[in-house]
Amino acid sequence: MKTSALEPTYIFSEAEAKAKSPLAAEFLDERSRLNGIVNEADNKLLKRIYNVDTNAYLEGALPAKTKELMGLVASATLRCDDCINYHVIQAWRLGCSRAEQEESINVATVVGGTIVIPHLRRAYALLQELYS
Amino acid sequence: MKTSALEPTYIFSEAEAKAKSPLAAEFLDERSRLNGIVNEADNKLLKRIYNVDTNAYLEGALPAKTKELMGLVASATLRCDDCINYHVIQAWRLGCSRAEQEESINVATVVGGTIVIPHLRRAYALLQELYS
Amino acid sequence: MKTSALEPTYIFSEAEAKAKSPLAAEFLDERSRLNGIVNEADNKLLKRIYNVDTNAYLEGALPAKTKELMGLVASATLRCDDCINYHVIQAWRLGCSRAEQEESINVATVVGGTIVIPHLRRAYALLQELYS
Amino acid sequence: MKTSALEPTYIFSEAEAKAKSPLAAEFLDERSRLNGIVNEADNKLLKRIYNVDTNAYLEGALPAKTKELMGLVASATLRCDDCINYHVIQAWRLGCSRAEQEESINVATVVGGTIVIPHLRRAYALLQELYS
Amino acid sequence: MKTSALEPTYIFSEAEAKAKSPLAAEFLDERSRLNGIVNEADNKLLKRIYNVDTNAYLEGALPAKTKELMGLVASATLRCDDCINYHVIQAWRLGCSRAEQEESINVATVVGGTIVIPHLRRAYALLQELYS
Amino acid sequence: MKTSALEPTYIFSEAEAKAKSPLAAEFLDERSRLNGIVNEADNKLLKRIYNVDTNAYLEGALPAKTKELMGLVASATLRCDDCINYHVIQAWRLGCSRAEQEESINVATVVGGTIVIPHLRRAYALLQELYS
Repeated sequence: MKTSALEPTYIFSEAEAKAKSPLAAEFLDERSRLNGIVNEADNKLLKRIYNVDTNAYLEGALPAKTKELMGLVASATLRCDDCINYHVIQAWRLGCSRAEQEESINVATVVGGTIVIPHLRRAYALLQELYS
Repeated sequence: MKTSALEPTYIFSEAEAKAKSPLAAEFLDERSRLNGIVNEADNKLLKRIYNVDTNAYLEGALPAKTKELMGLVASATLRCDDCINYHVIQAWRLGCSRAEQEESINVATVVGGTIVIPHLRRAYALLQELYS
Repeated sequence: MKTSALEPTYIFSEAEAKAKSPLAAEFLDERSRLNGIVNEADNKLLKRIYNVDTNAYLEGALPAKTKELMGLVASATLRCDDCINYHVIQAWRLGCSRAEQEESINVATVVGGTIVIPHLRRAYALLQELYS
Repeated sequence: MKTSALEPTYIFSEAEAKAKSPLAAEFLDERSRLNGIVNEADNKLLKRIYNVDTNAYLEGALPAKTKELMGLVASATLRCDDCINYHVIQAWRLGCSRAEQEESINVATVVGGTIVIPHLRRAYALLQELYS
Repeated sequence: MKTSALEPTYIFSEAEAKAKSPLAAEFLDERSRLNGIVNEADNKLLKRIYNVDTNAYLEGALPAKTKELMGLVASATLRCDDCINYHVIQAWRLGCSRAEQEESINVATVVGGTIVIPHLRRAYALLQELYS
Repeated sequence: MKTSALEPTYIFSEAEAKAKSPLAAEFLDERSRLNGIVNEADNKLLKRIYNVDTNAYLEGALPAKTKELMGLVASATLRCDDCINYHVIQAWRLGCSRAEQEESINVATVVGGTIVIPHLRRAYALLQELYS
């Protein structure tokens, strides 16, 4: 099986996410600051991991929108706030509806249990800002 | 936000999955046997959990196909062979392509790491039988 | 098996927990604020999950006190600070002794490993305030 | 805080568990065989870990029965079949009712999510044999 | 920081591991059979993940022996029998002593808790065969 | 198998770590404050757990340096910021190079997946301060 993967087309930029949502702005700025430190270190294997990561979310047999929502599901079941924030913002930038985001979080909460709820609460605060 | 959820339309029955794949047959028969024991116990709260579980995968803002693949992603990141088998079979029954299943597993493996690989190997054995 | 579940009788209110412990107050206020955002979203499936969650901790074959301590054990093994805080406060409100809380955390730490310790440290800070 | 811990009084022996349940017999025999291999290795630190483990479940501020059920909750949320089997058998040997075991598993399933269900199914098969 | 990574020098071959240990033989044969199925699928992203995985264990600032033992620690804390088997065999093939393997498992068991013990028991059965 | 375990020789003190790195200082001070609260509680079983924990990282068949890096691997795969901070500082105090720390984190990230990346970013911020 071959997969030809393509860059997704974003409807909104990161800057627009930051303009719309203070929570998104705070998260993206801190993420960007820390990624700067990681980039300086120039660790070869880590760069390949970042690269594989990018590739997993490109357009393919599944649309990028679906993959970002899957990233959200994986992040919510594994309970990582930063990862949840990132995929919520990416899915918003690709034009996913709020209902699509909520149903994705529902799948994660059913599979992952009520231990997901504290993370889901913070995700809803971000959703509220992005979709207001 | 209201979600009106609907039963998905299966292209293939469980019986067809079992006829196609010995691995599916073995898994579904054992699952059915054990669910029989659980049903006999008639635990009220557990029945509600089963019910909520069913509802999470119905047609809604997201198609049932996407939700089953999300269930696969969640199951693979949490590394549960039974859950992976179940969602692979469900997604096949709903008409998902093998490429869609593989890309879903890719997202889970990238997020969840190489610790997912032993489970992915067994998932590929099931995919091979179902999509042959 | 049928379980007739009943509302537990609290010895202390949430307000009393907040009056006794600044850590409890900070946690409960933030939880309440975020639950407000979740409630506004009015997601039907999520409401059912919240409902099932409430039911799991009602009086039954096991007393509510034991179930809250079990919630603490589950939260500590899964390493969720918010969940630990919540169950510590609930167990305190139901009249559990500090020794009972500590022994519950011990079980979680033995099963879950030293990775639980950073969370346990924060739990002890909350216990210190509630049982002072 | 000091905890004086005491050996619990078992109502049933391991032999009685094995006589009652083929699943218990198979599990306990394999566990015993492998523990023999571990004991031969005579690893000093590991022996201390086994020792701490034993101590966590002794009579204390909480009864041993409650602690074994907490061990079951922790094992079910962390999804370890062997650990679930062990604590189900221990709780049965100490005289816990089937309803108490089921409610403990309910707490674990609510907190840990539907990913616990495959393990819960196998636990119910063991419960069925032990409480028949 | 640049890392020049090199293939490690194995003291024993996979065939020698299989000749020495029936458990190793059974594991390696099944792993090889399933990897055959994965290879046939020829999933491009998955191949890159396999490739990154291989690179993580090459000689570098840390010797390959240490990295395989670290893989064992990671596998034991995440409780994956297949991954534990693989790294135990790899560490043996690179000449690690049994004491080094046991101390690595000790770190994993202390950090990861007694939930690791069922996996550790099976690892000791493999260690016993390989180091007899 | 007997292991004679010895205290490792630190090249740098905790005070030197704090002088070099504001992130280390903030972490170590908060850890020390909370450990004070835990110590006051004087929980007997918990003290034994702390004791076993200390023993796992002493000099033995493997050098203490390697064990601290293994603690880092375990902490990163289980995604615990406090534990990562602690082992990064300990490994630095024992004279591990930055490259050795990065390669350890690479193993953890490959095994544990991209869900480790947010924690890795924060670890790199600490590494940057300690190795500047």
